[in-house]
Amino acid sequence: MRIVVALGGNALLRRGEQPDADVQLVHVEAAAAALAPLAREHDLVVCHGNGPQVGLLALESDADRSLTRAYPLDALVAQTQGMIGYWLTQALVNAGVDRPVVALVTQVVVDEDDPAFRAPTKFIGPVYEQAQAHQLAGAHGWTVAPDGPHWRRVVPSPLPVRLVEQATVEQLVRGGATVVCGGGGGAPVTVGPTGRLQGREAVVDKDLTAALLAVALRADHLLVLTDVAAVMEGFGTPSARPLPTLTLEQAEGGTYPAGSMGPKVAACAQFVRATGRPATIGALSDAAALLTGLAGTTVQPPGTRS
Amino acid sequence: MRIVVALGGNALLRRGEQPDADVQLVHVEAAAAALAPLAREHDLVVCHGNGPQVGLLALESDADRSLTRAYPLDALVAQTQGMIGYWLTQALVNAGVDRPVVALVTQVVVDEDDPAFRAPTKFIGPVYEQAQAHQLAGAHGWTVAPDGPHWRRVVPSPLPVRLVEQATVEQLVRGGATVVCGGGGGAPVTVGPTGRLQGREAVVDKDLTAALLAVALRADHLLVLTDVAAVMEGFGTPSARPLPTLTLEQAEGGTYPAGSMGPKVAACAQFVRATGRPATIGALSDAAALLTGLAGTTVQPPGTRS
Repeated sequence: MRIVVALGGNALLRRGEQPDADVQLVHVEAAAAALAPLAREHDLVVCHGNGPQVGLLALESDADRSLTRAYPLDALVAQTQGMIGYWLTQALVNAGVDRPVVALVTQVVVDEDDPAFRAPTKFIGPVYEQAQAHQLAGAHGWTVAPDGPHWRRVVPSPLPVRLVEQATVEQLVRGGATVVCGGGGGAPVTVGPTGRLQGREAVVDKDLTAALLAVALRADHLLVLTDVAAVMEGFGTPSARPLPTLTLEQAEGGTYPAGSMGPKVAACAQFVRATGRPATIGALSDAAALLTGLAGTTVQPPGTRS
Repeated sequence: MRIVVALGGNALLRRGEQPDADVQLVHVEAAAAALAPLAREHDLVVCHGNGPQVGLLALESDADRSLTRAYPLDALVAQTQGMIGYWLTQALVNAGVDRPVVALVTQVVVDEDDPAFRAPTKFIGPVYEQAQAHQLAGAHGWTVAPDGPHWRRVVPSPLPVRLVEQATVEQLVRGGATVVCGGGGGAPVTVGPTGRLQGREAVVDKDLTAALLAVALRADHLLVLTDVAAVMEGFGTPSARPLPTLTLEQAEGGTYPAGSMGPKVAACAQFVRATGRPATIGALSDAAALLTGLAGTTVQPPGTRS
């Protein structure tokens, strides 16, 4: 089977953890251990998130007084693709994946007129108390917004249109490689009238990029991996319970929190609508069981018998 | 023809320039304009340097008080591979290269017992006055050394043994892609007794990595691009003059400054010795003319008629 996996940036750095390299390497090794059985048996493509990591690099670049201005987000996203791609490919080899494992720097085309450029919603970087968040927003020209009980920086998150390097990903997968790509959703670019690529100050949702790529690659299954076991019915209420399946209509019609479960359900629905194949949301540690429906929440193609 | 190019990190950020992203993007576009004719006509592999860039990221990571310790050099090298790979592939597409252009995150195997780990020689980051360099060395645990009239941080620079992703580079080149890889010489790793890859605190010379890759790929020509037009006879004297050619024996026997022309001549000699094919050192802006011997200094294979 050909499988596309979306791996949360929070899976590599948990909220409240010290953002040190060695802290993340422990999580990367756990992720690789969970993904290695899939990579050995199937053609696997991994799109990873980068919220905590790109936020850290943005802060460092902001604080660097040798610079006239901080590096733009597209360049910082590309930096995280290099670092996380390096860590993941190394850890997958060390976890016993016995085929080429490679990370590709990837650009994602977005629409210059995407309304997201006027309404930033994507969280990056650490959490702050409200007063500190507003002070930082003033100092750096950021937009900030509440994320649960805390506040964080938000940046535009336009919809992905296509990966510039899509044909190469296809070539590598067909050649038997495990491919890490679309990291952080891809470095966002717009395409000018003459075809010129231009980097943009944005961060694309990696779940939506993974879905787009899964459709383009005609994947057999999309796995959206996160730190919760399943989509919950009655989320946040005492009667909350995990949903083993969602119909496509439920997935397209439901309302889920933006910035967390919302894009994951939307990504699955897009893939199932376009391909008629299943997509599953669940915990990274359950990766193998998600494929067989033994864990997680599967958005089922129309006509599936339950 | 199949051509491997080594592109100096200083070609993307000149000494004394503000290390801003937009300053580097101007140089990246000039580099892409010089390389695009080669990429259109030939199978091109580009290994770029990252001295100024990895030095900047190391300083930022050192200064980041949310970290227990700065990120290790292997992770920072991988970050520069992401950023510079993104910039270069985008600029090559924008310069009219009409084939897939991709950047691969690459690990380079080094020997754990390489003496370089005990004697750092590779310059990274900005230049300092002597007193400031010694103060920084004390504060951060760096080694510093004189670089011309100034001082800079130096890190271990072990010899490259092989690129972990070599087979994939070959596959991509054979498929018609222009490939950016081995950035910053590759993220350095050692291989443990069970085959486990382990990142190391080092920076590998990108000219030597390019030569190694050129041999492995059976390239027809190695081009080592820098900011000077040729190897100079009597360098630093009033009678200095450019050398159009060097015999392999001259290249192997000559003494050139470590950290600048030395590794370039050594890289060319290694490629010529291993393959019997020519290698040329010269200016980035002369890239096309270097191939035909109309510019630069060519290390000639044994038996070449002059």
